[in-house]
Amino acid sequence: MAEELVLINGEIMPKNEAYIDIDDRGHNFGDGVFEIVPVYNGRCFALLPHMNNLFESVIHSKIPGVYMIEELVEFHENLLQAAGVSECEVYTQITRGSGAYGLAYPEQCIPNLTMFIVPVDRKALAERRIKGINLVTEEDVRWQHCDINTLNRMPEAMAKQKAYISNAFDALFVRDGKITETTEASFFIYKDGILWTHPENNCIHKNITRKLLTERLAPDLQLQVIERAFDKEFALKADEAFICGPRCEFMPVVKIDRGFIGDGKPGQMAASLQNAYEKFVAAECPAK
Amino acid sequence: MAEELVLINGEIMPKNEAYIDIDDRGHNFGDGVFEIVPVYNGRCFALLPHMNNLFESVIHSKIPGVYMIEELVEFHENLLQAAGVSECEVYTQITRGSGAYGLAYPEQCIPNLTMFIVPVDRKALAERRIKGINLVTEEDVRWQHCDINTLNRMPEAMAKQKAYISNAFDALFVRDGKITETTEASFFIYKDGILWTHPENNCIHKNITRKLLTERLAPDLQLQVIERAFDKEFALKADEAFICGPRCEFMPVVKIDRGFIGDGKPGQMAASLQNAYEKFVAAECPAK
Repeated sequence: MAEELVLINGEIMPKNEAYIDIDDRGHNFGDGVFEIVPVYNGRCFALLPHMNNLFESVIHSKIPGVYMIEELVEFHENLLQAAGVSECEVYTQITRGSGAYGLAYPEQCIPNLTMFIVPVDRKALAERRIKGINLVTEEDVRWQHCDINTLNRMPEAMAKQKAYISNAFDALFVRDGKITETTEASFFIYKDGILWTHPENNCIHKNITRKLLTERLAPDLQLQVIERAFDKEFALKADEAFICGPRCEFMPVVKIDRGFIGDGKPGQMAASLQNAYEKFVAAECPAK
Repeated sequence: MAEELVLINGEIMPKNEAYIDIDDRGHNFGDGVFEIVPVYNGRCFALLPHMNNLFESVIHSKIPGVYMIEELVEFHENLLQAAGVSECEVYTQITRGSGAYGLAYPEQCIPNLTMFIVPVDRKALAERRIKGINLVTEEDVRWQHCDINTLNRMPEAMAKQKAYISNAFDALFVRDGKITETTEASFFIYKDGILWTHPENNCIHKNITRKLLTERLAPDLQLQVIERAFDKEFALKADEAFICGPRCEFMPVVKIDRGFIGDGKPGQMAASLQNAYEKFVAAECPAK
C-alpha cells in the first residue's frame, strides 16, 4: 500500500522499516506532543495554523525546538507526494527524544519527529451527518492542561472506547458539572440564534476548526459566539448541537446520553456551517 | 555492557536490537502501564506485591491479560540472570499493543511487554540520607486516576524537571491545597509520635514501600499511621518528614520550598524506618 509510509526525522521510509527507539520518552512517559492536519485534494488544510498549534504545544512542554515551520511544511508535502493519497489526515508527533530512564529531562536530548498518513472516510462522515450523532457524557478526569496537545491520551482513549461500546460517536467530557469538549472535537450548541461553547482555556484542546468557526465562519454568517461553560441540561434545551474539529469537520449532535436535543434531528446551523467549511476548504485546497 | 539487555514479549535481546513498533499505542497515546521493582543481591524485592500492583493497573486500564504472574516472575529472573547485575531496578511496561491510529481500542490488539534494567546508585542515595533532601511544591495538575500506574507521565516529568532545576530532590504535589505525594514516592510526616500521610485513593500512586510501611514496619515499631490529607503549613510544623518508595526507599525531607521542617536535620524516625526496611530487604533478598 502506497500510503503505508512514515516520515521519521525528515526521512521517508516504509512503515514496516520504521521503529521507535526503546528509550524514546514518548514511549515511556508520553513525553511528546502531536497535531493532526486534514488533507483535501492532496493539499493540507490550514497547515500554518495547525503548525502554530504544534509549536505552542512544543513550547509549553519545553521540548527543544528542532524544526522550522518551513521544514514541517516541506515534510507534509513530501510525505503526501510519496504516499500519493489525496483524502487523508497527516499525523505529526514530536517527542522530547531518547534518554536513560528517568522522569527529569536528559541533558542531551534530541527530539524525535514521526509523521504518518491516517486514512479518513469522508463519505462515511457525510452519511453520519444525515442522521446526526449520539454522544455519551463522561467525567472529565483528564489533567489540567488539555490545551497542550500531549501524547498523554489514555483518559481520552478510555472515554472514546466507552462511547464506542455504547454505540455513540464520541464521549462528551463533563468537568465540575460543565461540558468541556469531546475526545477530539469542540462542542457547540445553537440556541436563540446564538452559538455557545466552552471558553478556550486550559480545559480544552486548541482546535483549528473551532478557531476557523469563531474567527471566520461565524462572522461571515453574522453569528455571535458566547464562550461560557454550561451543563448538559442547558445543552439538551438547545435548538441544536454539533461538534467541530479537524477530523469530524462539522457534525450535528442529536442525542446526549438518552436525551434528544431539539426535535432530535440534525440542525440547519450545523449544515450551514459544514457548507461554509466545505467552501472554505474548496478555496484553499482546490483539485490539482 | 552486560546490563544493556531488554526483554520484549518474553524474549531477551540487546537493547540496540530492540525497537518499539511505530503503531504501538504506548507510543501514540501513553496507552499502557508500568511497574518498577527494586533488586538487591540479584533478587527482586516484594516481587509479588509489585506484580499485583501491575495487574491492578492492567485491569483498571482494560488491557487484555496476556501474561500470568508466574511468567512475569520468570521474566524478571531471566533478565536479571542474563544482565548479571545485582543492585538495580527492573522496569516493566505493558502497553495495549499495536493498532491503526485511533483513540478507540483496536478489535484485535495484543499487549506488548517491555522490560529493562534501570541502574541505581544506592550509595549516592545513602549519602543523601545523611543530609536529607529538599522538595519543591508543585500544583498537582495530574489526571484523577493517579492510582493507575499509566504511561501518561508528562505532568510528573515536568514537575520532576522543575525540581531538578530548583536543586531539589523531587517535586511535592499539592492538589486543592493538600499535599498528595511526590512524582515517585509517598510523603509522610511524623508529629507527636504519629505518622501522617495522604489517604490511599485515586489521587496517589499505589506504592508497595508505603504498603510495607503501613502494614508491616509501622506495626512492628508500634507506630500509628493517620491517613488524612494535610497542607504544607501543617507539614512544616511536623517534627520530621520523609518520602518512601521503591526507588528512594526511606529518605528524610528537611526542607519544603524555603521552609525547614523541625530542626532542619534528618529525623530519627526516617532513619529507624530505613533501618527496619534494610533488615526486611536483607531477610528477603539475602546475598547469593
